[in-house]
Amino acid sequence: MVKVNENYLKLPGSYLFSTIAKKVAAYQSANPDKKLIRLGIGDVTQPLAPAIIDALHKAVDEMASAETFHGYAPDLGYEFLRNAIAKNDYQDRGCQISPDEIFVSDGAKCDCANIQEIFSQDSKVAVCDPVYPVYVDTNVMAGRAGDYIEAEEKFSDIIYMPCTKETDFAPELPKETPDLIYLCFPNNPTGSIVSKEKLQEFVDYANKTGAVIIYDAAYEAYISEPDVPHSIYECEGARTCAIELHSFSKNAGFTGVRLGYTVIPKELERGGVALHGLWARRHGTKYNGAPYIIQRAGEAVYSPEGKAQLKEQVAYYMKNASVIYNGLKDAGYTVSGGVNAPYIWLKTPDQMTSWEFFDYLLEKANVVGTPGSGFGPMGEGYFRLTAFGSYENTVEAIERIKKL
Amino acid sequence: MVKVNENYLKLPGSYLFSTIAKKVAAYQSANPDKKLIRLGIGDVTQPLAPAIIDALHKAVDEMASAETFHGYAPDLGYEFLRNAIAKNDYQDRGCQISPDEIFVSDGAKCDCANIQEIFSQDSKVAVCDPVYPVYVDTNVMAGRAGDYIEAEEKFSDIIYMPCTKETDFAPELPKETPDLIYLCFPNNPTGSIVSKEKLQEFVDYANKTGAVIIYDAAYEAYISEPDVPHSIYECEGARTCAIELHSFSKNAGFTGVRLGYTVIPKELERGGVALHGLWARRHGTKYNGAPYIIQRAGEAVYSPEGKAQLKEQVAYYMKNASVIYNGLKDAGYTVSGGVNAPYIWLKTPDQMTSWEFFDYLLEKANVVGTPGSGFGPMGEGYFRLTAFGSYENTVEAIERIKKL
Repeated sequence: MVKVNENYLKLPGSYLFSTIAKKVAAYQSANPDKKLIRLGIGDVTQPLAPAIIDALHKAVDEMASAETFHGYAPDLGYEFLRNAIAKNDYQDRGCQISPDEIFVSDGAKCDCANIQEIFSQDSKVAVCDPVYPVYVDTNVMAGRAGDYIEAEEKFSDIIYMPCTKETDFAPELPKETPDLIYLCFPNNPTGSIVSKEKLQEFVDYANKTGAVIIYDAAYEAYISEPDVPHSIYECEGARTCAIELHSFSKNAGFTGVRLGYTVIPKELERGGVALHGLWARRHGTKYNGAPYIIQRAGEAVYSPEGKAQLKEQVAYYMKNASVIYNGLKDAGYTVSGGVNAPYIWLKTPDQMTSWEFFDYLLEKANVVGTPGSGFGPMGEGYFRLTAFGSYENTVEAIERIKKL
Repeated sequence: MVKVNENYLKLPGSYLFSTIAKKVAAYQSANPDKKLIRLGIGDVTQPLAPAIIDALHKAVDEMASAETFHGYAPDLGYEFLRNAIAKNDYQDRGCQISPDEIFVSDGAKCDCANIQEIFSQDSKVAVCDPVYPVYVDTNVMAGRAGDYIEAEEKFSDIIYMPCTKETDFAPELPKETPDLIYLCFPNNPTGSIVSKEKLQEFVDYANKTGAVIIYDAAYEAYISEPDVPHSIYECEGARTCAIELHSFSKNAGFTGVRLGYTVIPKELERGGVALHGLWARRHGTKYNGAPYIIQRAGEAVYSPEGKAQLKEQVAYYMKNASVIYNGLKDAGYTVSGGVNAPYIWLKTPDQMTSWEFFDYLLEKANVVGTPGSGFGPMGEGYFRLTAFGSYENTVEAIERIKKL
């Protein structure tokens, strides 16, 4: 009799956003006349930019004739896309990343979920608290997290790095030495950033201890202030300790298009084994490439037209962020984030728990957000709103919240 | 110091098709004037059918305006696609599979690579020999395969089910009881089929022993003879022991488009845990859905126009299969497959090893095939040719081989 992977059974409840989706669906079905405004999940609402639509149509046409048809993609992704990424996201910023260090994929979520596979099963994992649940849950599934301690809402073998108001929601170096360190900046869920100095501390620490940093740069396009690192490779020594993940979901609105990439520098090795080779092997064995037409859409993100149009799109969402941030602040809420990130992190009023505030907002304002406690115990008493709604809805949501 | 996943280091060499690609690239670069014909990797060459091109353009246009834009897809895939699959691939054939038992993904390769994750790490795996390498390699990576025994070209803890000429390249029930049984029919690489009676034996065996069958039906569209099962769910009792994987790569030419699906019946459970729930959790946590535009392309596969156009496309490739099969037979080769599958399996002449014949064919006929030994030790002395080339190239390749 085959047994199931019992590590899966250690996961408490369902995936956070599935739980929210079910709760919202139940409320909507019981109250069909209510107009809900969704500022919960980080899903975009603006259409794809014209340059991307054009690239998609053109690539679809190529698939219609045998001469220009494309079958299986190259293992690492098409060169035209990897070249554009290396130039625009790295070399133009002074980071020495070459195209063959880039692995194109169908999204940063898959990559950040799968990257743990190339490491030993007994690796000790450190995460920020609060944290994007995928980093923790995938390590639970792999059997690295130990047992769930209900009272603490923590896993026994995960190292949690508290990100609190006192530290501007950035982590301190962990007390216990980890093997893998997950960092995401600009941060999901708090919208906070890490300074270059602080990030350099982590890089130095990883190089000293032999840990590897998994750096999730999904929200990099939202950085508006100077001196905030856009890539971990801006730090000295990052090429020997860091893997960086990128998404096209938020900078180009690809949540329903699916494209991302992972960077593994050639000299990053542990125990004499190059991590680049391991990930290449995983890519070749378990994955079959992102669709040709979508890699062409990715290329268009870096065209002059694409860049200009997406700059406007990001500005659109950041105007929403400012509406939320300033609106809530005026209403007396304690808020942070929203300046270099599309997320606003607020303290729940009147000592409400995160889920109490979720229900309160859903029922009284018909606004959907995300309970901070869903991201980890230090998120309790906090709440995340996203800037990815339409401008009109965002303004209305804040008006409704102000009236409560 | 973090350690790498040492199971990866047990894999001998690189992924089969990566090795072939490198060998071919080296030959082509040394002989730039030679016109190679590739009948190696199972990649299609015909353009996407007009109905699919139309669906793609239409869906791209939807992504261009906020009213019809689609962000994150539902966890299991869009209902419009799951409904079409359930009706056309199952219910119309008398198999009771409902849309919510279907998980849409970016391809059968990913699914057959990832499905092992939901089972216990100590599960004993049985595979056909020869076999599609992904089933074995992914279990090696997960630490289930034991050690590689160089002399036997086998892993110590994998149960190999020989598929030989004597059994018409179908497997017998394994002597040692496995937990997971991978079956692929019509078969890659041999092009053989399994009769309904034989498949029922496996289903009964799995139900008796508590094993789970992973049934890869990627080549189902190529079945031309009656009494060949199109789905394992045609067998009685399969709903309590079988997971089925489907690809759009071969029936609709989606190798560069990426779409597939996995079926897990609701009543399939082991140790009181429903496998459907585990896979749903994996999908929700580690995956983010297939692109909207590509799910619309998948829907078009089941439209009346799509069906008619794809029937022609499959017939085109099967004409190639017949050119290869009959051409090689006339030339004195021992061949099988090619009737219900796009693969022709031939015995190498003159006691050549599979790789010797690969080099021989590459150098003397400039034809690329796949060495049978790359699929397992029982594949030694065999060779796979695929019907996915253009008709003209296929005819020329066979002419060249005949002249050797």
